Amino acid sequence: MSEKTSDKNRTELQDLGEFGLIDRLTQGVELTQKSTVLGVGDDAAVVSNGGLSTLIAKDLLLEGVHFDLSYAPLQHLGYKAVTVNISDIVAMNGHCHQVLVGIGLSNRFSLEAVETLYEGIQFACKQYGVDLVGGDTTSSQSGLVLSVTAVGSVDPERLVTRSGAQTGDLICVTGNLGAAYLGLQVLAREKQVFLENSEMQPQLEGFEYIVKRQLTAEARVDLVHWFEQQNILPTAMIDLSDGLASDLLHICKASKAGARIYQEKLPIDPVATDAALEFKMDPTTCALNGGEDYELLFTISQDHYQLLETHPDISIIGHVTESDQGADLVLRSGEFTPLKAQGWNHFH
Amino acid sequence: MSEKTSDKNRTELQDLGEFGLIDRLTQGVELTQKSTVLGVGDDAAVVSNGGLSTLIAKDLLLEGVHFDLSYAPLQHLGYKAVTVNISDIVAMNGHCHQVLVGIGLSNRFSLEAVETLYEGIQFACKQYGVDLVGGDTTSSQSGLVLSVTAVGSVDPERLVTRSGAQTGDLICVTGNLGAAYLGLQVLAREKQVFLENSEMQPQLEGFEYIVKRQLTAEARVDLVHWFEQQNILPTAMIDLSDGLASDLLHICKASKAGARIYQEKLPIDPVATDAALEFKMDPTTCALNGGEDYELLFTISQDHYQLLETHPDISIIGHVTESDQGADLVLRSGEFTPLKAQGWNHFH
Repeated sequence: MSEKTSDKNRTELQDLGEFGLIDRLTQGVELTQKSTVLGVGDDAAVVSNGGLSTLIAKDLLLEGVHFDLSYAPLQHLGYKAVTVNISDIVAMNGHCHQVLVGIGLSNRFSLEAVETLYEGIQFACKQYGVDLVGGDTTSSQSGLVLSVTAVGSVDPERLVTRSGAQTGDLICVTGNLGAAYLGLQVLAREKQVFLENSEMQPQLEGFEYIVKRQLTAEARVDLVHWFEQQNILPTAMIDLSDGLASDLLHICKASKAGARIYQEKLPIDPVATDAALEFKMDPTTCALNGGEDYELLFTISQDHYQLLETHPDISIIGHVTESDQGADLVLRSGEFTPLKAQGWNHFH
Repeated sequence: MSEKTSDKNRTELQDLGEFGLIDRLTQGVELTQKSTVLGVGDDAAVVSNGGLSTLIAKDLLLEGVHFDLSYAPLQHLGYKAVTVNISDIVAMNGHCHQVLVGIGLSNRFSLEAVETLYEGIQFACKQYGVDLVGGDTTSSQSGLVLSVTAVGSVDPERLVTRSGAQTGDLICVTGNLGAAYLGLQVLAREKQVFLENSEMQPQLEGFEYIVKRQLTAEARVDLVHWFEQQNILPTAMIDLSDGLASDLLHICKASKAGARIYQEKLPIDPVATDAALEFKMDPTTCALNGGEDYELLFTISQDHYQLLETHPDISIIGHVTESDQGADLVLRSGEFTPLKAQGWNHFH
């Protein structure tokens, strides 16, 4: 096999992790095209062809890594595959207009199953006012492969990247955190119960909200409109796919800044708290590292403090510091604990 | 498993084939966005944001379906994954400026292997003057997954789709046909020999050209420049990924036209002819259905006949007819045989 090299020259991917691998692979990337406004390292690439800037984001969803078909209904999966990509466009403060969908299928799928998947894709397109304009359908020798590309636009003056956070800016987050991760724990537990005794029906009562947060995802397009209406701009923004800690560290790295966030300010839904306690997990850890919330994390000038306070779904969770101060969580006890990037480390 | 339905309601994907599946899935797709110029059904989607039209194409390459790592070196694979997507932009008469690359990897790959793949990707970017601006890296539980999105632009007045072929237009093709397919046959045979006796070294002498055509691919950007220099426009164009027969039928369907092409006019390299004979295959069949040539197939007004004759790498292979005349190959014997779409039918 051509990918084999002698052990001496072999570096294992799990020793690098996702972010290490991306850093390593992209360090030699040079940009030469006049129309390239922004390349790798943000939620979406930015391209200019004379008018509005074009935003392009792409995400790969692989069976067994990003989803488990034994509990992710195909319709939900199609919906989520589209919305998480729209979320990347939203994270640049842009409007998504088009998506392209590539699907790799094995013959264990029937036409009806594929149509169910497509219904979810088309429902998401309808919900978000987005056109499905292309893609690719092929067979797969292994699991289901979903590859979505989202295309959007933004007035160049309203583009928000990860790199503009300034010392003293407020750190804000929309919605609540950790719910999608805890929904996954509930689903995984019920799958285990079912595998041990197929007579058992899944017990999801009381957990519907967090299960829904896991199985579908919504892109916060409402925030892009709200920023526009209020005529304000975040200084940096990212969508929460990897988890608050990792994603805040992405902003810190890109902005060459530090951050201080407060445990008591983290928005956690009561259902998520209950689930965390049932699984003997710390709700704060789930909020920091859970991932897949697809809420927006942004930094913004303190001048907008009062306005932000009026928004029912925005929490101010901390502030931006100098980079040499690092990125910390301040516990309820007053102690400081450094934030750590977890990200997806599937390479094991 | 959620994708299982009762047999009565189950339609097998292999009964539909790739094109049937795509037709079925995209029949309900509506376009609502002002900026969408062209949606599914061509080589790339077309989006307008006020200036030049933006072209977006995406292709999924899956291990075991589109490539076999036992004979496709990773560097070549990375190169080809980029160039086949640039080829889709070229097929719209556009210029490619950016690519995004999504990679799904399992831990059987080392960092060095992934870097080799990336070298091929970056080499293709350099060769074609294209920026790598984003993507996604994730783990895969099964084989290697490569998902490339190419972004380009075109002056709206120079956009060429599949749908403009007119009765009487010339049908032209660049380069030669069937070489990539026959290169694959050589590689597959040598793999078999190796599996039976690992002492055997692969015998590729004499076949280097067609093996190269299989392992790499070049996008015909030179033609886009030539059309510009000559100030002429094809009426319809497509790149040859599925094979001449399938791809010409795509043009016929989109243009509501028929076609007549001539066996004696099909450009086939002598090495490909030799290989076909060695494999007891008909060179014409390989040229018609081989696929992966990534040459351009286009229709163009007869007014340009003399100019086209001066181009050393364009063959005029036939002409466009009324749609009720169907699409035929005229054999050397004078007999007519209808063209059939083969495409990729991996669903078995």
